[in-house]
Amino acid sequence: MFITFEGIDGVGKSTQLDMLERFLVDNGKQVLRTLEPGGTELGQEIRHLLLHRKGDVSARSEALLYAADRAHHVATKIRPALEAGKVVLSDRYFDSSVAYQGAARELDVDEVRNISLWAVDNLLPDLTVLLDLPADEAMRRRGNKGTEPDRLEREQVEFFERARNEYLKMSNQPRFLVVDASLSPDEIHQQVIGRVSALLDQ
Amino acid sequence: MFITFEGIDGVGKSTQLDMLERFLVDNGKQVLRTLEPGGTELGQEIRHLLLHRKGDVSARSEALLYAADRAHHVATKIRPALEAGKVVLSDRYFDSSVAYQGAARELDVDEVRNISLWAVDNLLPDLTVLLDLPADEAMRRRGNKGTEPDRLEREQVEFFERARNEYLKMSNQPRFLVVDASLSPDEIHQQVIGRVSALLDQ
Repeated sequence: MFITFEGIDGVGKSTQLDMLERFLVDNGKQVLRTLEPGGTELGQEIRHLLLHRKGDVSARSEALLYAADRAHHVATKIRPALEAGKVVLSDRYFDSSVAYQGAARELDVDEVRNISLWAVDNLLPDLTVLLDLPADEAMRRRGNKGTEPDRLEREQVEFFERARNEYLKMSNQPRFLVVDASLSPDEIHQQVIGRVSALLDQ
Repeated sequence: MFITFEGIDGVGKSTQLDMLERFLVDNGKQVLRTLEPGGTELGQEIRHLLLHRKGDVSARSEALLYAADRAHHVATKIRPALEAGKVVLSDRYFDSSVAYQGAARELDVDEVRNISLWAVDNLLPDLTVLLDLPADEAMRRRGNKGTEPDRLEREQVEFFERARNEYLKMSNQPRFLVVDASLSPDEIHQQVIGRVSALLDQ
């Protein structure tokens, strides 16, 4: 089973991933917890180019670097783990590119989606948890982290609002669970494990 | 005007680029001489990941990294130079991905081509000089360079033969000039400037 967490920065994905990982391990599952960008060694170098390097990255190049990170991540880490029977939990995946490099960067969303589909050789998650929050509220939460913002985090509220709207647009697909991220972590977790348990029982 | 040089490693692209660059400068042209991968600062870091890093790069990830390098190269260097009226000479471009990441790596050639077209936003060269040589002969010549082979250069002769065959297949497009790379550098140069002069006179 392959589960991804999506949503704009600041909605609380890491907290929910921690809680779900613990739940799954307590239920005897073998779990691979991973993230994008940077889920592999090569990916960490790509992540550095994307987020921490000085100088601009043109929009199409950025989209292709995310896709390159994802292609290597799927081929060398996610697919082997799924084939070994593990539950894979990823902090961001496919949908992040559609929302960020497509909608937020104002490239053609369908073209970005097609490139990402090619990158992953059509591997889509069984479940995608979308934590939803207005962009200004997510930015406020993120501001409290106290860490230096990376290249993406320095974008303006309109950028994140476009990403959020694209996430909501795609969330009518059956693999999505949309959760109001203004709820408490425990309330969110209950909704998540409700859906995960149903999937595990299938 | 945008001119690219293609062909498998060892066919003598650099020598011909030197000669053509001198010819154009002597004829009063402003020339941008560039290369792929690594024609920009970001591209040099991508080039390092592709050619000099330890560890594997999965096939789709490799194709996407080349495309990312190219997208940034076009957006920040090639297009601005063309708009400023310069002649751009590139050592490898679009067709290298189709031949190497498509045919030689045995990915779907049309899919690789489409991704590369998206990367460059449909910017194709006015002229592509394909220096053609059998793979075993090109490898023999390359062996005489005396430098340490990079990740691509360590591939076997069959890999380069697939790339060569794909180059020949695409070379029926009108923008191609195919030259027998076993000719002397001067003979090759005469064929190249014949075609370039005709283009400049248009």
